[in-house]
Amino acid sequence: MKLPKVIESLIESFQKLPGIGPKTAQRLTFYLLNVPQSQLDYFSESLLNLKKKTVFCSVCKNITEVDLCPICSDSSRNRKVIMVVEQPLDLIAFEKTGKFKGLYHVLHGRISPLENIGPDEIFVDDLLKRISSQDIDEIIIATNPNMEGEATAMYLAKEIRKISDSIKITRLGMGIPTGADLEYADDLTLTQALEGRRQI
Amino acid sequence: MKLPKVIESLIESFQKLPGIGPKTAQRLTFYLLNVPQSQLDYFSESLLNLKKKTVFCSVCKNITEVDLCPICSDSSRNRKVIMVVEQPLDLIAFEKTGKFKGLYHVLHGRISPLENIGPDEIFVDDLLKRISSQDIDEIIIATNPNMEGEATAMYLAKEIRKISDSIKITRLGMGIPTGADLEYADDLTLTQALEGRRQI
Repeated sequence: MKLPKVIESLIESFQKLPGIGPKTAQRLTFYLLNVPQSQLDYFSESLLNLKKKTVFCSVCKNITEVDLCPICSDSSRNRKVIMVVEQPLDLIAFEKTGKFKGLYHVLHGRISPLENIGPDEIFVDDLLKRISSQDIDEIIIATNPNMEGEATAMYLAKEIRKISDSIKITRLGMGIPTGADLEYADDLTLTQALEGRRQI
Repeated sequence: MKLPKVIESLIESFQKLPGIGPKTAQRLTFYLLNVPQSQLDYFSESLLNLKKKTVFCSVCKNITEVDLCPICSDSSRNRKVIMVVEQPLDLIAFEKTGKFKGLYHVLHGRISPLENIGPDEIFVDDLLKRISSQDIDEIIIATNPNMEGEATAMYLAKEIRKISDSIKITRLGMGIPTGADLEYADDLTLTQALEGRRQI
């Protein structure tokens, strides 16, 4: 028995999403058969307009409705400190802490030779131009603590050094996350925690 | 920092789906920002038309594009055997085996007093009318093997008996599933496997 075409299409669309397999896609689709049409209309419209109603901020490349983004246009923020992140979600994670008052730069990726992603595929040039043309005190490179993130950080640091010797370049502190169990921490994390120890 | 409204709406829509929490909803939404607009259009259209382009088959209540559904209109199938299932997905699971050649009846739920679902909320009346007006040999009640499914099966059996004494009413065989490990089977499954033993 063949499923109605529109049901097949929706299952297919769900299945293309990361982490959603055929069974889950089926379950989600059949679940939606039982919701009010208004909920389907709302979902459908959000999908349709997702990219149409958003742009990259011309300064920091964050996702925004209006250019400049709310952070770049906020005059109360410290314009001399830029935190470089891989994705908009990283930016949101930091904003939730409420502890960072500088600006951001979203790379939309990281350098990964295996995936053919070089500096030209992500917003590196825009960052370097921004640094050249403005008075910056510190660049916090907050790429992920994995091989690609580290390689991206090294590359950025080298390029920023070419522009200026005086800009402070930092990387996020590394070590044991809050709430973790020492017993289960891996060797590298423990080593980094030891190296990054602070006087109390 | 507030996210663009259309992004918030999409996260909200994903979050309403079963088994999708706030973090996953965020991840799926930001993933979709990087797919081609054509994929968003396709997804959006499938959602919009999901209920508009499907109907319940007037005979078996299966989801279909055209009434009757492909199964009810297939003249090669045995019209004297009806398998009663809770959901369209159960029907699809049986069709995949290719071993059942009768017709179906989809209840779209099961009797569950705790959730205020009685026989009137699911397609029980339609089933009983179907049985009264047609020449049926056997009804296979394939509701789920849990409390609500069993209660629904008992209720249906009682109501069908009122209509006819001669119809064979059956329930799916129960026991150890293929590939399972006896050691880990629960008591009830083992008991049922023992009760349902067959001569080889």
